[in-house]
Amino acid sequence: MDLRARIRDWLIEDFGSAPLHFEAAQEPWCEARIRAKSAAVLAGGPFVAPVLEETQALLALDQGRPPEIEWRAAEGARLAAGEVAAVVHGHAQTLLKAERTALNLLSHVSEIATHTAAVLAKLGNAPASFRGLVDTRKNRPGLRYFEKYAVRIGGARNHRLGFFDGDLIKDNDIAAAGSVPAAVERVWERRYMTDVQIEAQDLAQLDAVLDDGRVHLILLDNMDLATLREAVSRCRARGAAAKTGKPYVLEASGIGAGDYAAIAATGVDFISTSSLVRGAPPLDFNMKIVRVG
Amino acid sequence: MDLRARIRDWLIEDFGSAPLHFEAAQEPWCEARIRAKSAAVLAGGPFVAPVLEETQALLALDQGRPPEIEWRAAEGARLAAGEVAAVVHGHAQTLLKAERTALNLLSHVSEIATHTAAVLAKLGNAPASFRGLVDTRKNRPGLRYFEKYAVRIGGARNHRLGFFDGDLIKDNDIAAAGSVPAAVERVWERRYMTDVQIEAQDLAQLDAVLDDGRVHLILLDNMDLATLREAVSRCRARGAAAKTGKPYVLEASGIGAGDYAAIAATGVDFISTSSLVRGAPPLDFNMKIVRVG
Amino acid sequence: MDLRARIRDWLIEDFGSAPLHFEAAQEPWCEARIRAKSAAVLAGGPFVAPVLEETQALLALDQGRPPEIEWRAAEGARLAAGEVAAVVHGHAQTLLKAERTALNLLSHVSEIATHTAAVLAKLGNAPASFRGLVDTRKNRPGLRYFEKYAVRIGGARNHRLGFFDGDLIKDNDIAAAGSVPAAVERVWERRYMTDVQIEAQDLAQLDAVLDDGRVHLILLDNMDLATLREAVSRCRARGAAAKTGKPYVLEASGIGAGDYAAIAATGVDFISTSSLVRGAPPLDFNMKIVRVG
Amino acid sequence: MDLRARIRDWLIEDFGSAPLHFEAAQEPWCEARIRAKSAAVLAGGPFVAPVLEETQALLALDQGRPPEIEWRAAEGARLAAGEVAAVVHGHAQTLLKAERTALNLLSHVSEIATHTAAVLAKLGNAPASFRGLVDTRKNRPGLRYFEKYAVRIGGARNHRLGFFDGDLIKDNDIAAAGSVPAAVERVWERRYMTDVQIEAQDLAQLDAVLDDGRVHLILLDNMDLATLREAVSRCRARGAAAKTGKPYVLEASGIGAGDYAAIAATGVDFISTSSLVRGAPPLDFNMKIVRVG
Amino acid sequence: MDLRARIRDWLIEDFGSAPLHFEAAQEPWCEARIRAKSAAVLAGGPFVAPVLEETQALLALDQGRPPEIEWRAAEGARLAAGEVAAVVHGHAQTLLKAERTALNLLSHVSEIATHTAAVLAKLGNAPASFRGLVDTRKNRPGLRYFEKYAVRIGGARNHRLGFFDGDLIKDNDIAAAGSVPAAVERVWERRYMTDVQIEAQDLAQLDAVLDDGRVHLILLDNMDLATLREAVSRCRARGAAAKTGKPYVLEASGIGAGDYAAIAATGVDFISTSSLVRGAPPLDFNMKIVRVG
Amino acid sequence: MDLRARIRDWLIEDFGSAPLHFEAAQEPWCEARIRAKSAAVLAGGPFVAPVLEETQALLALDQGRPPEIEWRAAEGARLAAGEVAAVVHGHAQTLLKAERTALNLLSHVSEIATHTAAVLAKLGNAPASFRGLVDTRKNRPGLRYFEKYAVRIGGARNHRLGFFDGDLIKDNDIAAAGSVPAAVERVWERRYMTDVQIEAQDLAQLDAVLDDGRVHLILLDNMDLATLREAVSRCRARGAAAKTGKPYVLEASGIGAGDYAAIAATGVDFISTSSLVRGAPPLDFNMKIVRVG
Repeated sequence: MDLRARIRDWLIEDFGSAPLHFEAAQEPWCEARIRAKSAAVLAGGPFVAPVLEETQALLALDQGRPPEIEWRAAEGARLAAGEVAAVVHGHAQTLLKAERTALNLLSHVSEIATHTAAVLAKLGNAPASFRGLVDTRKNRPGLRYFEKYAVRIGGARNHRLGFFDGDLIKDNDIAAAGSVPAAVERVWERRYMTDVQIEAQDLAQLDAVLDDGRVHLILLDNMDLATLREAVSRCRARGAAAKTGKPYVLEASGIGAGDYAAIAATGVDFISTSSLVRGAPPLDFNMKIVRVG
Repeated sequence: MDLRARIRDWLIEDFGSAPLHFEAAQEPWCEARIRAKSAAVLAGGPFVAPVLEETQALLALDQGRPPEIEWRAAEGARLAAGEVAAVVHGHAQTLLKAERTALNLLSHVSEIATHTAAVLAKLGNAPASFRGLVDTRKNRPGLRYFEKYAVRIGGARNHRLGFFDGDLIKDNDIAAAGSVPAAVERVWERRYMTDVQIEAQDLAQLDAVLDDGRVHLILLDNMDLATLREAVSRCRARGAAAKTGKPYVLEASGIGAGDYAAIAATGVDFISTSSLVRGAPPLDFNMKIVRVG
Repeated sequence: MDLRARIRDWLIEDFGSAPLHFEAAQEPWCEARIRAKSAAVLAGGPFVAPVLEETQALLALDQGRPPEIEWRAAEGARLAAGEVAAVVHGHAQTLLKAERTALNLLSHVSEIATHTAAVLAKLGNAPASFRGLVDTRKNRPGLRYFEKYAVRIGGARNHRLGFFDGDLIKDNDIAAAGSVPAAVERVWERRYMTDVQIEAQDLAQLDAVLDDGRVHLILLDNMDLATLREAVSRCRARGAAAKTGKPYVLEASGIGAGDYAAIAATGVDFISTSSLVRGAPPLDFNMKIVRVG
Repeated sequence: MDLRARIRDWLIEDFGSAPLHFEAAQEPWCEARIRAKSAAVLAGGPFVAPVLEETQALLALDQGRPPEIEWRAAEGARLAAGEVAAVVHGHAQTLLKAERTALNLLSHVSEIATHTAAVLAKLGNAPASFRGLVDTRKNRPGLRYFEKYAVRIGGARNHRLGFFDGDLIKDNDIAAAGSVPAAVERVWERRYMTDVQIEAQDLAQLDAVLDDGRVHLILLDNMDLATLREAVSRCRARGAAAKTGKPYVLEASGIGAGDYAAIAATGVDFISTSSLVRGAPPLDFNMKIVRVG
Repeated sequence: MDLRARIRDWLIEDFGSAPLHFEAAQEPWCEARIRAKSAAVLAGGPFVAPVLEETQALLALDQGRPPEIEWRAAEGARLAAGEVAAVVHGHAQTLLKAERTALNLLSHVSEIATHTAAVLAKLGNAPASFRGLVDTRKNRPGLRYFEKYAVRIGGARNHRLGFFDGDLIKDNDIAAAGSVPAAVERVWERRYMTDVQIEAQDLAQLDAVLDDGRVHLILLDNMDLATLREAVSRCRARGAAAKTGKPYVLEASGIGAGDYAAIAATGVDFISTSSLVRGAPPLDFNMKIVRVG
Repeated sequence: MDLRARIRDWLIEDFGSAPLHFEAAQEPWCEARIRAKSAAVLAGGPFVAPVLEETQALLALDQGRPPEIEWRAAEGARLAAGEVAAVVHGHAQTLLKAERTALNLLSHVSEIATHTAAVLAKLGNAPASFRGLVDTRKNRPGLRYFEKYAVRIGGARNHRLGFFDGDLIKDNDIAAAGSVPAAVERVWERRYMTDVQIEAQDLAQLDAVLDDGRVHLILLDNMDLATLREAVSRCRARGAAAKTGKPYVLEASGIGAGDYAAIAATGVDFISTSSLVRGAPPLDFNMKIVRVG
């Protein structure tokens, strides 16, 4: 992904083909403040300067003076409602034209980080064996990179980013291949440094995976707590995948807004949930010009 | 915007640079079903076929047989939880690789349409003069076209799409220009078929707009009910903008999750709210392969 | 539109795939003059610096010193034949490779501005009610933005820029829809801040528009002076569109190289003509290197 | 150049980011006619089908039935005013949205072909030694390929297409290099199958070229008839370039709307003029829907 | 990567901006044969049809009849010198313009597959523990996907594809971080399904890795056979990485044209070498038209 | 070709969609050395700085300090094994992420230049009439510009770059056209400044070319020395092409690793061979960080 090309696409979505071009040097130099309208974990700050810079590159026919941004809070810091996150300086049209795209991005990334931090807080005291909360590939099209970044800033971890950094064998893959071993066979040893994970939807499917003996990353999907506990117990009894010697790593998924603490207590290593990204309540930033010229 | 180029960008976000290419003709022909996991207004259906087609175009080295989709429900229809929305046929890898992108889009568009319909239902019996609920430019970057489409399917209307189809003079524009008349002057008669709207944050600013006599589209921002009523009354007393003869059109904004019915009752023509798009609760579709070969 | 990407496309059209790259720092620093070969309204100047900059960005393997341009005349100023419009400094290859693209653009934009100013001069003393001359969408493919910009510099106004900032119901739209009201219905209330205009080719069609009562922007197409006068009279008698209260705005089109003053005297608000853009006689600029090193 | 990508750029210039998408299968199937509004040499026909096809590809969410075009006149044929050039069939929105871009291109290409044919007719009976009229690189940015194609359809020939298929040493190149031999040295033997041409602005410069003995393609720029005759005579006396043995080929340029026949009679091989492309008077085509459904 | 967009880039590299367009339907339909000029492992065949199709899409103004290709040998098969690999049918210009790009790709991919198969043959009887030969990231820019594909067809395996599917800590990474543990810390647990590999250049560095206890994939770089044996012995003595329980996986690199069999006998799991890709001797295919019309 | 866009494509091939972005200003400033691992002709140096710059532009969220490169040897210079070619300074992540792409390019370009110089050395004392060694269009897809550049740095010359700067009539073209004169007719006088070359595979075909009298550039393909001598003799006897007066220029091709000196001695003007590019043995550069902070 070319981040700046992506940002230009977003800006052009807002600018269209209209005759918006301006001469930067003839625009007054302004100061503006970016504030969170409610309490927030600040995330996405590093992308704001590129939005301002690309706006000026796209629209200003002369080069003018480059916009400047000074962050008053660190990426990942908690902001109180109304707190100034950043002070921006730039030519008026640069600020006016970049404002909506910059704030839309900042709000979207921060709301996911804020929500992730809140979910983590709900998780409370997980057992020492619990290794963390991870996201999924349920993202808004075109925004995966930014949404996964937000999850990390919020304190959780990323599952694979796409088809390119891990093979996850899901129910449809097993259906298309015909069986668990056939589905594993299709991807086994195809990659050098990426692992294979397989989804088990019940204990019978889990046993098929354990008997196959190749895959050590198992996704326990949509199981109730009792089934989860039994699944964990069967895996721990085997210890490691027979054919690789790698200890089993277990991930519970299909949680919805479930009881994360209870699930963590079953002994799984990870919990994955799309709600980190898709369940984040809206959160707003604004930008106000406070000085002109 | 080139819709199919955008879809390819989304698919490449998921596919990366990994060696995913396949020969379609060697893949089994499958049947799959797309279902809503909870009650939903179906929206985004017309974009699913292009996602399937572009997946095959990107990844299949031979042309194979094109994927087919048969919708069981019309765009905008209400689906019960678990109801089949569409039956899909295609080569296995086409379905497996397109699945996540297609569902991410369908879920996102449908959740906004579903939420918009719910907000409209809450609005209840608005006075006859009330002309509708509209969205804003607070969209996820890169998804404005799809989110605004979802709002229409849900039954509401779109405000302007971007800078290119309307001039909205906001607080920052007035600040940069120095006064209401100066801000109006900057855009007045610059366009031929698009209108100018101006934001008034209090009654004094409203009076400045009315006295200027040019702009007839007024956005009453963040006013309480009493102030809104007074604002409406002052505008209706004048009837039309002095310099154009166009009757005033009033829009209330800054509502949050406010009492839409009470606001509509003040006599404004429109209510705008970003919550149609940004406040939509998550909603999930899945796709399951039900027959192989 | 990404202006600089468009400029790079133009430059690559001239550069092709040939091994033109150079090391800027090893090229002598030159001074050149850009002159109009005949009397002209200078237009397009602000695009010349980006052409020079993008040439160096595309072709120079080191960054060298950026090209500089000093305008001796303001955008929109009248130049005498042979008058120096600008003095340029830059590395030799930057100037030599950018020259043709820069001059082709400058000549094209200036010839439209010059011609527009000449047409406006011919219009003479229009009645006070006359609001201006506007262009059309009859542009060279890929150059609409630049040609519409030229029209503004020449002193006239732009009609809509494309399908995105106004709905114009033309004869083919009425034919496809079946009737004037059916054609209006298709676009009515689809947009929030853009107007609808409809074409009337005779008085019967005009009456159908007036009776429909929705559209207030009317394009009177290809009418002779007597018909135009009658059309204006019927519209002014009604005053405003019945359903919106907006006063009628009338535009005469299909003028060719007609008698603009007589048409303006009929009482129409606007005259539109493609000849501003397409009828501009050729006009040439050249660039001569006057100092090397 | 990717022709279809270029066509998509043009279409997006007209479509913008507006929600224009349609379902082709729900649109009525229409018949339309494309006519020349005045006498014309038909040129650009082969590009119309791609414009229609790409419009449907960009805007239709289902694939619908592909548009069809049947030409009633051959490329390069002379059309009478009002004559039908082609009959088009397609879904209504495909035709309505493609119309302006298709006609803008067809009109532009045909007007250059028509003008070129007219200039050739004025040239009359040139001596047998005269080899033809050629164009220049004075094109509208982004349209060189199409404008040069139009020149060929009109009956003339193309000079080089860009920097990539020939080296033309002009006054600025000589100025930057310091002398004729130094300028020749820079490009000599750099290419394998492309020639070098050099501009001579007076007889002294011509003698420098002849004495250098390398370049055999000479552009005699802005010379009056007497000087041209003398120049031709000096070159013919030498016969061929001393160092390559290639007979001299002479091109007269800087003609404006000069007396082509008299110049051809001086014995030059070619006359080049930008007026073929830039001096073409406007010419219009229209498209009218004649049957719906 | 968009494979067809990449193919279009390659074709445009050959076609440039020249007026090559043709009307397919007016071109004769031809039959051609693709042959290997010397013995070869056939690889890259699946990319040839897309090259032919994209050539016609780029250059043919009408759609003509699509080119067809019939392979006489399977991908990965051994071809004798002069053996027909495929029979191609298509319009003359489609074949003539696609020929060079298609053959350049086919030759390049086949020569790497052929060489890889030859290297594997030299490896002979490796011990049962030996898991295979892998490539590196030393590829020609822009061709990594194709070169890695060729390695697989030739019978070897791919190391990581890029930065996105594995973290390899190399000498420069350790230098930048300051120590082995600091370098591991930077990437540890940053990914979910991809492993970390670390380079050890001598036994001391190997011990540092073993003591750190996190990374289980170790690249033994540029070691002689005795050192390799000692390194293997130390790793096998530990068995698995202390902190993950994953058994050590050892890769020998820096082999050049070394004695693969002797290295495999040291007990390493993998040998990586850039020579599979970069050391492949040239190998040629040609395409000859054998029937026209 | 947009060189920097091409470099960004290469970098994205290595970076993928992974979250690699960094804040340059927080990275230590490093010094690194680029060395040739074996004796080499240095070529491709001018492309290294753009690789570093584009890496930082793609990945750094702030602008940081631009990377710097100081070459210790000139482009085209001979480097001893282990000799430092350049000293690089830059932020750590800029260097670490650009390293592989920069070295892959530098190695590839230098190995072709080195091999070309070696082939030229083998050619020894050619007769005075011999004009040089040229390459072909047998390039790796996407790398033609760089491979042809390497050939020039190595001391040889480039044949045509693509279809756009010369017409080469090959066996397939003659087959498609039906005869030598028919094939010449298709391209004759189609271009203004580029020549036509024709391939003759035996003396009969050569006579057909000589009798046609138009083409003066002849490629003598796959002839043995005796046939070559006879071919040269027949051409020299005629002197120049009858219809153009241009002296024959003869090129021998199909040499493989033949005896270049003996072929040059036959009196041909040029020898072309794909082995300059495709037969170059691998050659490696490395980059080592020598100072951090």
